Amino acid sequence: MTFRLKIIGSNSAAPAFNRNQTSQVLLVNNTHFMIDCGEGTQLRLNRSRIRINKIDHIFLSHLHGDHYFGLIGLISTMHLFGRTRPLYIYGPGPIKEIIEMQLKYSDTLLNFELIYYFTDQTDEEIIFENKDVVVRKFPLNHRIFCTGFIFREKPKKPKIRKDKIPKDFSLADIASLKKGKDIFDEGGNLLYKNEDLTLPPKRSRSYAFCSDTKYDESILKYISDVDLLYHEATFANDMKERAENTFHSTAEQAASMAIKARAQKLLLGHYSVRYKELDVILEEARNVFKESYLSIEGSAIEIED
Amino acid sequence: MTFRLKIIGSNSAAPAFNRNQTSQVLLVNNTHFMIDCGEGTQLRLNRSRIRINKIDHIFLSHLHGDHYFGLIGLISTMHLFGRTRPLYIYGPGPIKEIIEMQLKYSDTLLNFELIYYFTDQTDEEIIFENKDVVVRKFPLNHRIFCTGFIFREKPKKPKIRKDKIPKDFSLADIASLKKGKDIFDEGGNLLYKNEDLTLPPKRSRSYAFCSDTKYDESILKYISDVDLLYHEATFANDMKERAENTFHSTAEQAASMAIKARAQKLLLGHYSVRYKELDVILEEARNVFKESYLSIEGSAIEIED
Repeated sequence: MTFRLKIIGSNSAAPAFNRNQTSQVLLVNNTHFMIDCGEGTQLRLNRSRIRINKIDHIFLSHLHGDHYFGLIGLISTMHLFGRTRPLYIYGPGPIKEIIEMQLKYSDTLLNFELIYYFTDQTDEEIIFENKDVVVRKFPLNHRIFCTGFIFREKPKKPKIRKDKIPKDFSLADIASLKKGKDIFDEGGNLLYKNEDLTLPPKRSRSYAFCSDTKYDESILKYISDVDLLYHEATFANDMKERAENTFHSTAEQAASMAIKARAQKLLLGHYSVRYKELDVILEEARNVFKESYLSIEGSAIEIED
Repeated sequence: MTFRLKIIGSNSAAPAFNRNQTSQVLLVNNTHFMIDCGEGTQLRLNRSRIRINKIDHIFLSHLHGDHYFGLIGLISTMHLFGRTRPLYIYGPGPIKEIIEMQLKYSDTLLNFELIYYFTDQTDEEIIFENKDVVVRKFPLNHRIFCTGFIFREKPKKPKIRKDKIPKDFSLADIASLKKGKDIFDEGGNLLYKNEDLTLPPKRSRSYAFCSDTKYDESILKYISDVDLLYHEATFANDMKERAENTFHSTAEQAASMAIKARAQKLLLGHYSVRYKELDVILEEARNVFKESYLSIEGSAIEIED
């Protein structure tokens, strides 16, 4: 099953050096989850060969423009290209007012429904769930209300070893095995141990998105043991004071968070327009946590199961 | 003196085939006038080497998203890059509400003033004037309220022939010549005829922007004798009925307008996403009016004086 993150935009406040503002698409099995939607996201989806009407769920961390100005254009183009399926938008409440006002003044009646889930400042909360994955939002620490998102695959079933299954096994027995149970006869006597007829389930993968936020260890409880952690690294450490004042993080701080969260890999992003080259960001993070990587537009990170 | 139109975006409703949504910059002397501002305009300004804070005046024809979704991002980046000079926005009234709402929810207090001039559905009207140029808006015929804009250079002064000027000429005499007057002595006797000491003034150039609109000859009175006419050509003539129904024009109709307006040149644009190649649009217009040209992003059209 696919679990792949595609980087659509990687920069912070303004586009610069061919880096565009924040947007990502996480593909879990056949579901495309968009996370943030900076200006021009629809243009870059084209280049990433992601068909825009494949996207059914859009998660917005907060209402700074570099994270959502592309949404109204994306919605308009979805409409133009004949969308009829509902589009689900998860984010701060005013996004509805912003989108609806612009649709009103362009006299546009969409052929599909916009269904909103409004995030709030409370603790961790499940905001989406399907057969494969659970998505939770959690509070970040930014200038305005901002949430992170964590995508965790649901626990998987043990794999049945077909070569070991007796011919008289019923569908009910198979179902029991998939639930991890042993098999008993009608008298309650053990016939087969589960572990003899199955292989352990594949592990459940996870991805956490943390942007924008200052360094804040209170976030750790939401993102512990994540496979892939995206943590903003707007600045290098020589700008630590500016990071603090603007409620952003440095690359070194992002790497510290990755270690403390016991993340497998760290993905850096939300680069300040002051950095033409990103080596300083990457090196600083790698000095703390070796498994640090830059988010590069157009690239994809696959998490193997 | 420069009179140059730069094409920033040329496509209609959605970006396609590397063509972006409508935006143009007209440079008259040292003033940059932006006309419409589709999504991603700030990205393409970068590529056109136009510094965004050179732009002081933005004219919006109407509130369909392909003509203004880029404005809020442009304003945000102007702010980030330290703008303090006011920005003048000419367009339909709700643009103020749309911009202010988004600034409010991002908790952004701009370091510069936004000064709005609200266009309305009335007849032709002067909306801007400086020493070089007068800008008028006029009504177009579209689904929602939409205006065109015409930029006309002011009448120019006659050029003084320095080789013919007597040494005892005063500054007041020179000023009289520039006003087109003859020179008299104190007794009221003619000393010099203006035409003997001057060359005729250079002609005043003009540019008219007509998008979006159906074919409507009532527009002609506003754009007569224009040097360069931009008229939308969303479709080729085989889609004439669709053009009519959606309040757009065909290339043939745009060319007819150019002839009837006695325009020197016609610039076509606002292409439908159905056209990958634009030859059909250009050929159709040229069959009617030879001086027809495609607007191509990144290209510039200079009007010589």
